[in-house]
Amino acid sequence: MSSCFNSGVKISIFGESHGKGIGVVIDNLPAGEEISLDKIGEFMARRAPKKDGTSTTRNEKDIPEILSGLYENKTTGTPLAAVIYNSDQHSGDYGNISHTARPAHADYTGFLRYNGANDPRGGGHFSGRLTAPLCFAGAVCSQILEKQGITVGAHIKSIKNIKDESFDPVNVTAEQLNYVKSRSFPVISDDAEEKMREIINSARMNLDSVGGIVECAAVGFPAGTGSPIFDGLENIISHLVFGIPAVKGIEFGNGFECSDLFGSENNDEFLIKDGKIVSRTNNHGGILGGISSGMPIIFRVAFKPTPSISRPQKTVDFKSMTETELVIKGRHDPCVVPRAVPCVESAMNIALLSALLEKPQI
Amino acid sequence: MSSCFNSGVKISIFGESHGKGIGVVIDNLPAGEEISLDKIGEFMARRAPKKDGTSTTRNEKDIPEILSGLYENKTTGTPLAAVIYNSDQHSGDYGNISHTARPAHADYTGFLRYNGANDPRGGGHFSGRLTAPLCFAGAVCSQILEKQGITVGAHIKSIKNIKDESFDPVNVTAEQLNYVKSRSFPVISDDAEEKMREIINSARMNLDSVGGIVECAAVGFPAGTGSPIFDGLENIISHLVFGIPAVKGIEFGNGFECSDLFGSENNDEFLIKDGKIVSRTNNHGGILGGISSGMPIIFRVAFKPTPSISRPQKTVDFKSMTETELVIKGRHDPCVVPRAVPCVESAMNIALLSALLEKPQI
Amino acid sequence: MSSCFNSGVKISIFGESHGKGIGVVIDNLPAGEEISLDKIGEFMARRAPKKDGTSTTRNEKDIPEILSGLYENKTTGTPLAAVIYNSDQHSGDYGNISHTARPAHADYTGFLRYNGANDPRGGGHFSGRLTAPLCFAGAVCSQILEKQGITVGAHIKSIKNIKDESFDPVNVTAEQLNYVKSRSFPVISDDAEEKMREIINSARMNLDSVGGIVECAAVGFPAGTGSPIFDGLENIISHLVFGIPAVKGIEFGNGFECSDLFGSENNDEFLIKDGKIVSRTNNHGGILGGISSGMPIIFRVAFKPTPSISRPQKTVDFKSMTETELVIKGRHDPCVVPRAVPCVESAMNIALLSALLEKPQI
Amino acid sequence: MSSCFNSGVKISIFGESHGKGIGVVIDNLPAGEEISLDKIGEFMARRAPKKDGTSTTRNEKDIPEILSGLYENKTTGTPLAAVIYNSDQHSGDYGNISHTARPAHADYTGFLRYNGANDPRGGGHFSGRLTAPLCFAGAVCSQILEKQGITVGAHIKSIKNIKDESFDPVNVTAEQLNYVKSRSFPVISDDAEEKMREIINSARMNLDSVGGIVECAAVGFPAGTGSPIFDGLENIISHLVFGIPAVKGIEFGNGFECSDLFGSENNDEFLIKDGKIVSRTNNHGGILGGISSGMPIIFRVAFKPTPSISRPQKTVDFKSMTETELVIKGRHDPCVVPRAVPCVESAMNIALLSALLEKPQI
Repeated sequence: MSSCFNSGVKISIFGESHGKGIGVVIDNLPAGEEISLDKIGEFMARRAPKKDGTSTTRNEKDIPEILSGLYENKTTGTPLAAVIYNSDQHSGDYGNISHTARPAHADYTGFLRYNGANDPRGGGHFSGRLTAPLCFAGAVCSQILEKQGITVGAHIKSIKNIKDESFDPVNVTAEQLNYVKSRSFPVISDDAEEKMREIINSARMNLDSVGGIVECAAVGFPAGTGSPIFDGLENIISHLVFGIPAVKGIEFGNGFECSDLFGSENNDEFLIKDGKIVSRTNNHGGILGGISSGMPIIFRVAFKPTPSISRPQKTVDFKSMTETELVIKGRHDPCVVPRAVPCVESAMNIALLSALLEKPQI
Repeated sequence: MSSCFNSGVKISIFGESHGKGIGVVIDNLPAGEEISLDKIGEFMARRAPKKDGTSTTRNEKDIPEILSGLYENKTTGTPLAAVIYNSDQHSGDYGNISHTARPAHADYTGFLRYNGANDPRGGGHFSGRLTAPLCFAGAVCSQILEKQGITVGAHIKSIKNIKDESFDPVNVTAEQLNYVKSRSFPVISDDAEEKMREIINSARMNLDSVGGIVECAAVGFPAGTGSPIFDGLENIISHLVFGIPAVKGIEFGNGFECSDLFGSENNDEFLIKDGKIVSRTNNHGGILGGISSGMPIIFRVAFKPTPSISRPQKTVDFKSMTETELVIKGRHDPCVVPRAVPCVESAMNIALLSALLEKPQI
Repeated sequence: MSSCFNSGVKISIFGESHGKGIGVVIDNLPAGEEISLDKIGEFMARRAPKKDGTSTTRNEKDIPEILSGLYENKTTGTPLAAVIYNSDQHSGDYGNISHTARPAHADYTGFLRYNGANDPRGGGHFSGRLTAPLCFAGAVCSQILEKQGITVGAHIKSIKNIKDESFDPVNVTAEQLNYVKSRSFPVISDDAEEKMREIINSARMNLDSVGGIVECAAVGFPAGTGSPIFDGLENIISHLVFGIPAVKGIEFGNGFECSDLFGSENNDEFLIKDGKIVSRTNNHGGILGGISSGMPIIFRVAFKPTPSISRPQKTVDFKSMTETELVIKGRHDPCVVPRAVPCVESAMNIALLSALLEKPQI
Repeated sequence: MSSCFNSGVKISIFGESHGKGIGVVIDNLPAGEEISLDKIGEFMARRAPKKDGTSTTRNEKDIPEILSGLYENKTTGTPLAAVIYNSDQHSGDYGNISHTARPAHADYTGFLRYNGANDPRGGGHFSGRLTAPLCFAGAVCSQILEKQGITVGAHIKSIKNIKDESFDPVNVTAEQLNYVKSRSFPVISDDAEEKMREIINSARMNLDSVGGIVECAAVGFPAGTGSPIFDGLENIISHLVFGIPAVKGIEFGNGFECSDLFGSENNDEFLIKDGKIVSRTNNHGGILGGISSGMPIIFRVAFKPTPSISRPQKTVDFKSMTETELVIKGRHDPCVVPRAVPCVESAMNIALLSALLEKPQI
């Protein structure tokens, strides 16, 4: 019951939204890996609130201070710790809701779990702010993976009923992944961007919020990595992805769609191309038996609409045990999906580096 | 990279399809819990092949021999080990495919992962047979949970495009879960059973297979159990569920559907009923911030069609690196979903008992 | 291969001697436990260098800044993170030894392990400074244990051939443990203190150093906690104690002495006293089969003499692969044992709280 | 609180002395390693009771049946499970002591830990018989290590006050280790054997028992493997060694003796020999900062006298809470040390293979 992940890479995330600081310790990294702080900054900027109406207007600078584990810009191999100090704290905004359960938030469950002792301000340890250290860790891992020729990228697959194109599960390339990551609004299709921005804006104007789906892919990951049963790539990736608040589902390859297919439709034929074994289609999403096949790894993650909406909502005060009505103040994202894109990538980067490190080698 | 699960309950699964035996060690169980071997037998019988055309005609008796951990029908608190000896082995059936990659199987990825040293007969450690020890562990955990008033049950939500009714996410009861578990074909609606049997039978006649979805629910699980970030109920449940072969996706509560909703539609209002805090709807699936809310826990799991179909398939021989055509012989399930129902329950039973045991108590 | 400990309490220690900061994340603590910062300060002061000639003259203020996990002076139950900024850095002192292996230090082994990428300044992550976050964690755990009536205390059993009295393994009390902890030089006998101070001082004057033994005891720990095989109290305690630099051995109860006894001498008779089962003697050191017996838990830890001595030493430069002579400059402890006392207690406090939390309870 | 070890190699030990069987699952082994069953048999025979008066006259054949993980005599890379069926069960011998606490045994602590539900027959899961699966695992690991040029060997350093010679900590060779392992009574000096046999025999005649010390060494282990703080070689080795019943202490290198030395005496000078960095002396026991130095790894383990002696002993009945006298019947080892030698080696083999597998490599 901890905020630790203990596979090949060991991650310990700490902090509360309105405490002194949040951060992460990343342990068991290979030594001597060059890390660019600028690239970390760019990665994390993708998670930071935008000034374009799609996210909160809070000013979260979120510049991580690295306390250990980097020496002369290289990983030392000993724990890499980073802290982000909380500065822009409007705890006043949350004063009146400390015992009122915000619907779809963890106020009530957290109160029970921690016997009322958890820090309730701004969601405390449940806050979406805790994805900042996750992204820091993901950014570090991504740089190590890139040197191995492995590229991870994600885009917004849908916001409500507006759909982006999909990654081509067979032919997606590192270039395409890097291109979509470079966009301020990470979609493949310009048309989708426009309509998604509209629906987000419209939700915001209606004091409402919207959900969506993120699609993530990795290319260059070596075939033959992972394990059956409990340490497969799907086990590890899903374990990490559900560490991102608001995630309600995950599917690999063609995912839920496969449940509506015949085996003859779903099975991916193998063939030889350029001396390499590949599959003609990639319904399996690059993973068979928990192990990478060498095809692009593809999965999609469902995000619920931001729970914090400014409309009046019926709920309860869990201390006085009375029903009440709640109006959430403060500045909130009308849609978490754009900012969730690098979070999903981070979970994936950590999972893939872990799987590489876990492979038994003597 | 192991077949161990190491949360509150520690599970180590071993065995290969055509080796001497398969089994499981379950460690860290509470001591003194009465276990009925008959009930374990009933639970495992639900996973065994049926004589009704929906599954393989192989005769898998799968009677587990308990080696340790039970004394006078109670858990000793020390490791509970069980072995199932493999008897009905037709390894001849697999002789010609040892280096031919069966599409959608792990033959090729397993070959790479284990440098060609893994046991290829019948899928080896990748075989669906390995869900028998999983079900044994699930059956043990379910009996311990039941004494705590916790009931887990699952049903076939769909086979291809044929859909069963859904569990009522707010009002589902232990009785309903137990009823559906008692059915030889675990669905809620008789009508769905008939049509599902038809489509499975038809796939079988066409030398094909079909996929489907399993829906699982738990009631009676105490609110306030679980954790945010990496040790939440979704993290643990999904980690275990992806240990079942053929799983391609998982979603909690309303799952992927939530991505198409406004926050005002998706948020579950809290209210007080009979002196208890409940929610009017249960889109959140009984989990908020990784922690149980006291509402029924609901999730769905997508299964792909059985990869083994008897039609000729194009593929490659990964040793000679040549393209080839493959006809899979042997007796295979035209649909794994009916037999997967107790497997999903097992993952859930293990996850819930783990979460209970992991809750920090001094 | 990490600096994490992952039993009931999860500890992740980070930092390098001359980096920005060192610290620790403590996860899975029970929620709502009142923590006194003053008491933490007192605990850590016992590890800080003394002004009395027994330790380095470096000024290590080592005031930990708590970033998360405490709210209104109580544990939130979410990760408790603390950082100690490094201020008094004399990296110049270490300039000339970066590739010269200081005998009995980890310079050479660390260089190999981290491919030359680890931070070599002041020992980097190998530095004794890293026991400050260990003591912080130990201080937190000790306060939680004390509320359960559990008291841990240690004293200097010997410095070189000068011996203190021993704790009475049967009758030692919390009061005695607290008394010895309150002393600036933690011994039982005044006479031992004087002679030990003399021998330390004399070593310092001779540009030399001395080793010694720390004896640690715990009283009030509930009988029946622990496990056989790999999760016993001895396994956990020794695992943690070897996390303290310079430790070369550990023994429980009468320890190595038992190897020279007959069974009839070593076996502790049980008897009933005040309605409780106790043992007449306590050669077993309060642990049988990895599980606490209710008797005081007693163990001793051997510390080697401080490796850093100011005399010329023969060694090698591991980069140029040449033999050389080394004179270590800087300010070093002529004996680490007095400052190691709270470190040993810390390992014990963490171990005992872990064992309590790990006990399966539903 | 489990009988699992979860480092690089994952070990799950199960069984009770008088249950159906005992065994072990070894997971995460590298694939394709050739394993000789004959060599496993030889290794385990060293732990089996001898017919020479030094051990119990019980007939423990202890031939392990391998259920999985070996295919064509090579590790498959998937879990290797082995079971040893219990055949020679004299549970009658233990009938009268089920609630009488045998002094220095875990009867009473086990009763508390497991709420009276553990299998008490013959010590149940606490029995020394559980070292048979440990030795099986150690034998498997040793064969994998040997192919890497790594040899582990141990001998009886002392029985009571009779001392064998010591391994030369600088110059001990694989040949010497293999020689001592080949002896039916594993000592270096013939003279020591004779006297040790006498003292064991004399203890047996006196219905008493004796303790002793085992010294273990490893050569060929690559320098630069291990980690500081919590994952060092000492942490891992001691964690495993305390899994052997009757162990009361462990020391590395010169161990407790270092506490009585000056730094100038204890520090090992480095020098260059045959182009390699070595140390002139090896007080550090081959480990610095938790990491191997390339010098032989040396440690000693203290074993208490066998608790089971046939003399009348005063004790209590922990169910009726009355004082009583106990005479232990049955056939017991007058000294566990000769049979403990391969157990200590096993812990070491598992530890070293784990450390190799844990080293971060991508």
